[in-house]
Amino acid sequence: MKMGRLYGVGLGPGDPELLTVKAVRVIETAPVIAYFAKAGRRGNARAIAERWIPSSAEEMPLHYPVTTEIPVTDPEYNRQLAAFYEEAADAIAVKLAFGRDVAILSEGDPLFYGSFMHLYIRLRERFAVTIVPGVSGMAGCWSAAGEPMTWGDDVLTVVPGTLPPKVLIEKLAATDAAVIMKIGKNFPKIREALSVCGLYERALYVERGTMEGEKIMALKDKTDDDAPYFAIILVSGQGRRP
Amino acid sequence: MKMGRLYGVGLGPGDPELLTVKAVRVIETAPVIAYFAKAGRRGNARAIAERWIPSSAEEMPLHYPVTTEIPVTDPEYNRQLAAFYEEAADAIAVKLAFGRDVAILSEGDPLFYGSFMHLYIRLRERFAVTIVPGVSGMAGCWSAAGEPMTWGDDVLTVVPGTLPPKVLIEKLAATDAAVIMKIGKNFPKIREALSVCGLYERALYVERGTMEGEKIMALKDKTDDDAPYFAIILVSGQGRRP
Repeated sequence: MKMGRLYGVGLGPGDPELLTVKAVRVIETAPVIAYFAKAGRRGNARAIAERWIPSSAEEMPLHYPVTTEIPVTDPEYNRQLAAFYEEAADAIAVKLAFGRDVAILSEGDPLFYGSFMHLYIRLRERFAVTIVPGVSGMAGCWSAAGEPMTWGDDVLTVVPGTLPPKVLIEKLAATDAAVIMKIGKNFPKIREALSVCGLYERALYVERGTMEGEKIMALKDKTDDDAPYFAIILVSGQGRRP
Repeated sequence: MKMGRLYGVGLGPGDPELLTVKAVRVIETAPVIAYFAKAGRRGNARAIAERWIPSSAEEMPLHYPVTTEIPVTDPEYNRQLAAFYEEAADAIAVKLAFGRDVAILSEGDPLFYGSFMHLYIRLRERFAVTIVPGVSGMAGCWSAAGEPMTWGDDVLTVVPGTLPPKVLIEKLAATDAAVIMKIGKNFPKIREALSVCGLYERALYVERGTMEGEKIMALKDKTDDDAPYFAIILVSGQGRRP
């Protein structure tokens, strides 16, 4: 029997119209559609792809055992996540081994901080894989803000807000343009790092970029520190512009 | 009379199926389609979008007066490019003022090193603009290579290969994952910088990612220094993976 093919399908930043034509084709034809979600929820990935999922598809929700309840530095976080990815990969392997293609939905781009990668590295030796790249969440945010990010020879640095203050400052001080991801509880630390680097006045805050409830403002105009984990802060480059 | 709307339309990395659904909708309905090209050519942007451009559309090719014939450090480069962008922006402004929507095609993402930005900053005060983000060229390349780029708290740095050797080395030494753009004549310098940073063995070379004639190989297996300007070198991150 011919084995199934695994698809890692980028969904883009949130607007369902920002899926690629290829992503839509794969979702419309794959017999099995898998997606990550918090326990008890259908999840954001499924919501973005909803209009393209045929009713005949077999859906495989993959429920995280933990998201932000345990710090990532706790060995228990690693243990629970590893067991979860193993089990999910095995369940998908069964579908593939029985000849069924499986599309794993991935917000943004599958290979850019995507949970898909944890399944991919467990399955790629055994099965054929096609990656369908997606518009990144950060591109959705800077487009929604209408903010040109990089000009000429600008260097762009993508910095997780989870890093220690000293490292955040080092990275921000050394770049022309920056995207800060993973905001949430890291917000006060990120504000401080931007101030130290003299970038605070230039920074933009974007929440739910390209989605319902989108919020875009100068960071200095955001008066509270209440931000979702997936909010993004942008500092655009100032490079060559004839 | 109602004025037209300007669209900056990301085309993605090269595979025509990697346009977004929104990009296709805009291209299929905009009465005027503008795109950059080298003098005497139809250009890569138009080729990517070709199947979606209706025969009824008015096409506006925008021919660069110069691309790599004059070094960017020469004031003459800046003068010629500025005059070109002014003239192109004025021509588009006429269409918009007469109530016609104009879609400017942009390879990759419009606000990420895109020529579109030079027209956008000249027009955005006067006209309504919608940016349609696109899959970046780099995401097309790492997907084609099947290379997970960033894990956990990895920092990603996007570095133009045009930078001086010392700066290249500084940036590459300070990051977890790197994308090096603008290869061409900068190739020997980039190889040297990667070697100095101990990243040479890990680097991947990608040429024409997602397009016909795609080439993907370990950088160490590429024996010549013959590379197009738009080739990309990838160094993937090694971060947390439960």
